[in-house]
Formats: sequence, C-alpha cells, structure tokens
Amino acid sequence: MRELHAGPPAVREIGDYVFGGGGKRLRPALLLVVSRMLSYGGDRDVRYGAVIEMIHTATLIHDDIIDHAQVRRGRPTANNRWGNQLTVLLGDWLYARSIDLALEADDVAVMKILSKATVGMIEGEILGQATCHRADVTREQYLEIVGHKTGELFAAACSIPALFEPEYSRFLKPLADYGYNLGVCFQIVDDVLDITGSQQRLGKPVLSDLREGKITLPFILAWPHLDEAQRRLVEDVLTRGEMSTTSPDELRALLERHNVIEEAVASAAAYGRLAEVALAELPQGLERDALAGAPGFLLQRDT
Amino acid sequence: MRELHAGPPAVREIGDYVFGGGGKRLRPALLLVVSRMLSYGGDRDVRYGAVIEMIHTATLIHDDIIDHAQVRRGRPTANNRWGNQLTVLLGDWLYARSIDLALEADDVAVMKILSKATVGMIEGEILGQATCHRADVTREQYLEIVGHKTGELFAAACSIPALFEPEYSRFLKPLADYGYNLGVCFQIVDDVLDITGSQQRLGKPVLSDLREGKITLPFILAWPHLDEAQRRLVEDVLTRGEMSTTSPDELRALLERHNVIEEAVASAAAYGRLAEVALAELPQGLERDALAGAPGFLLQRDT
Repeated sequence: MRELHAGPPAVREIGDYVFGGGGKRLRPALLLVVSRMLSYGGDRDVRYGAVIEMIHTATLIHDDIIDHAQVRRGRPTANNRWGNQLTVLLGDWLYARSIDLALEADDVAVMKILSKATVGMIEGEILGQATCHRADVTREQYLEIVGHKTGELFAAACSIPALFEPEYSRFLKPLADYGYNLGVCFQIVDDVLDITGSQQRLGKPVLSDLREGKITLPFILAWPHLDEAQRRLVEDVLTRGEMSTTSPDELRALLERHNVIEEAVASAAAYGRLAEVALAELPQGLERDALAGAPGFLLQRDT
Repeated sequence: MRELHAGPPAVREIGDYVFGGGGKRLRPALLLVVSRMLSYGGDRDVRYGAVIEMIHTATLIHDDIIDHAQVRRGRPTANNRWGNQLTVLLGDWLYARSIDLALEADDVAVMKILSKATVGMIEGEILGQATCHRADVTREQYLEIVGHKTGELFAAACSIPALFEPEYSRFLKPLADYGYNLGVCFQIVDDVLDITGSQQRLGKPVLSDLREGKITLPFILAWPHLDEAQRRLVEDVLTRGEMSTTSPDELRALLERHNVIEEAVASAAAYGRLAEVALAELPQGLERDALAGAPGFLLQRDT
C-alpha cells in the first residue's frame, strides 16, 4: 500500500506488516468486478477499492484489540507485536487517511455510502460487545450484528460503482442488495469455518470466536437442544475464554449430533440465493456470472 | 448532544457521560465567533461546530485509553468506567458519525480540511508515542507534536467558516494561521498548568503528563541545566509513571530555580502574538477584538 508511506515511521512499519499479512482482498475485488460489469472506463474504482480495504483493515485492527486476539492469518496480530496503544492509533490513522484519500475524488455521494457503512460496522461491533460472553443471543440478534459488521461494507463495495456515471443509478439498489446478502453469506460461512476448520487453514486457533466470547450461528441453533451440562460446557468457554472443561472435538460432536452445521450452511446458502436474485437486472456477461457464482464459491470453502 | 441518541444504547450512555463532563467547547466557540466576524447568516457553523467537538472528543477518548488516564475533569475517564474495549468503539463511533454528520452539508472542501486535521492529530499522537517515556525530546519535536495534536484542529475550526461563501476565501489562510498559533499557545499553557495547577483546578492529578511519560516544554527547557541526580528524578517519573523517588514540590522547585516556567509561558505568548498578527486583515469589530484577546485570556489562566 503506497498510501502508508505518507505516514509517520510507525505507520509504515506496522502498516507494511498488517497489509503484508495477505488477506483475500474480497471487497476491492467485488468493487472492481462490478465496475467492469457496468463497463466503467475511469480510474475511480481503483481508488475506492483501496479505500474500502483500508477501512476494512482499520476495523480488523481495532477488533483484534477488543477481542484480545493474538494471532491472525498465521502471524501475531499487530496488538500482540506493538501493544494496544500504538495499534489503536494505527487503526485511527488508517481510517482517517482512507477518508482523506476518498475525498480527493470529490464525490460526496460515495463518501456518504462509505461513512454510513463505517458507522454501521462500528454499531455492529458495539452490539457484539453488548452480547459478548453471553449464550442467550438469538438468531435475529446474531444476524443483525453480522449484517452491520459485514453486510454493510460489502454493500458499499458493490454499490459504489453505481455512482460513477448517472446512467448506472438504477443499479444502486440491486447492487447494494447483492453486496449485503453476499456479505452475510460470507460471514456465516466464516463463522462455521471457525468451528470446522483446522488451525493451520484458519491461521488462528479453532473456535476463536467462542473463546473470545462470541457465540455464532451453529451454537445458537444447537442451544435449544442442549441439556444443562452441555450448556455449561459452552458457557465455560464463552465466559472464561479457555477450553479447560471441554475440547474442540467434544463441542463439534455436540453440534454434529443436532445437524446445526448443515443448518447454518443452509442459512448462508439462502443469503447467497438472495444475492444471486438481486443480480437479475444487471448487465449480462462474464462479470455478472462471476458475481452470481460468488456465493457458491464461498459455500465450498471447506464446509 | 442530540446526535448521540441516534446510536446504540451503549453509545448513548457513555456519550452522555463524556459530553456531560463539561469541557470548554473552545473549538466550536472559535468557529462560531469567526462565522459572526464574517457576517455569515446560515446555519452551517452550528453543524460544523458540533462536528469539530465530536472529533475532538473522539481523540480525547482514545488518548485517555492510550495514556491509561484514570481521571479527567474531576471524574473517572470513560476507559476507567467502561473498560478499553467499549471505549475504543465509542471513539470510533464518534469519529465516524461526525464524518457522516459533516457530509450532510455536501461540502467537500470543508470535509478535506476536517480530514487533514484529523490525520494530522493522529500523526501527532503517534509521534508522541514514539517519544513517550523519553527525556531526550527536543523543543522542536515537542512543538511539532503540539502543532499536530492541537494546532491543526484549532486551524480547522477557525478556517472552515472561510469556505461558507466564495467572498470569504481570502480569509482562509490568515484564519488557519490564527487558529494554528492560538492552538499551540493554548497547548503550551495547558502543559504548564499541568505542572503549576492544583489537582482540584485541573480535575486530575498534577504532573499527569510526566507520569504518563510525556515530557513537556518546561522540563525540556530545564534539562540542559540539570545535573545527573536531578535528571534521574525526572526520568524515574517518565519511565515508571509514579512519584516514588521525588515529589511534585521538588520537581516544581527544580523548574523554578531555572525560570523555565516563565520561559515556557513566554514561548506561548510568542505564539499568541503570531495569532493576533494573523487577524490584521480580517473584518474589524467586536468579534475580531474577542479573537485578538483570546491568547491573553489563555495566558492568564492561573499561570
């Protein structure tokens, strides 16, 4: 990220580390594919793609501090390496600088989309904190948090290109719908992988969400079927952050017994279908096919 | 702040607490007085005044987390009451929401000023972190940090009204100069008060800056005159964060012996004069007189 080199030395160092850690760059990829689908010929897609990835990274950095996460993508998190203080500031800097970079394109309508998505993401994280360490989270609350935390930025990434030319404006709503539903599909799958994946593939310990106090859809779906003793095993991890009274294998066996992994994946697939349906009125071609195939691609990720 | 009530319950609760703690509202006051000086008749000054105070508060909230500050304005800090996690998010929310609120006025030029000032403030705090717990900070480094952390937002507050009407544009540069210099004057005085004030008037322990690892102008000016043993007393507080080997009275006596409090105040006064001079071409009247009197007012604050 060339942008980082405009910052103070600490920003360059930590920033290079964070962006050097890889990541799927899903959001900028979506923005670029949508731009091509609309036959956009300018260069604003590249700028906003970078902006979206910077905003996403800023929230990851703050989320890792908040969750006390120690490992991401197989490497120590920034907060683990540089401490919370400098890392809070790096997140702040990335976000403020992303706004600055976005403003250079002089487009208030795009800024409003970005800004509303950011407020939404932060509100999602605040709602997540309010339900942290708690087992009595409903499916609706879970989906509201996921919608804010992931759906809204995906919606922004996919709908921003609709503002690049006046004739694209009729695509704004379906693209936002596509992005939102794809984001929710992606996040449910991601939360399932946190349970079913291996530490090596995840780049972090399995069941990290539960250890960080966050109950995810499979456990929420299993909850009514669990007896008192089984519930206590889940609650122990949620509240203490460690696996002292149970093990990943035991918890997975609990979930498998009630087919809730399949149920969660089916729920993700339903959001994926909503995403596909939203594409119906968009220009046909290779790009639309790729976007329509994205949910299926996400759903095949090891689940 | 009516704005807070658009947020989730946690934002309302912590936000009401933080804004209920008072504060001088200096930055919005400057923005409003400058607007009146320019005979601006619209309502954008009120909007941007609220935005500036929200940005300022967001940085205070994150700075208190970073500095492990426990008390501000005579009350527990938000991080002390609600923990770092929720408080990081409140700062994020306030900043993101302030951008959102500012965008409603559809003025990219104002957004750019706000955004550059925010990036500058965060870079100032990052530079401050890089010199934290160190005694070998130069006067130039100190002034660079103060310029970023305080000067730039003051400059934004004072110069934004110059963008309200095309005919004000010639005032943009002198108003930014006025604000920047007034901000530096204010911060030097604030740092002096941290040494010379009483806990009751400060609303926090005396010498909080030094305890948090931040050396300020009077100590920087005194440094060349101190012997090894005296330097060690200062360094002990800077690195350990406590007064185990010395006392506030002993440290003040050290500073008084070398007249560096007066020297620091004279330095603040010099910035105050630069601020006054910058007002020369601005419309005469009661408002300009008030702005011209602001440095003198700041300099009389108990020093």
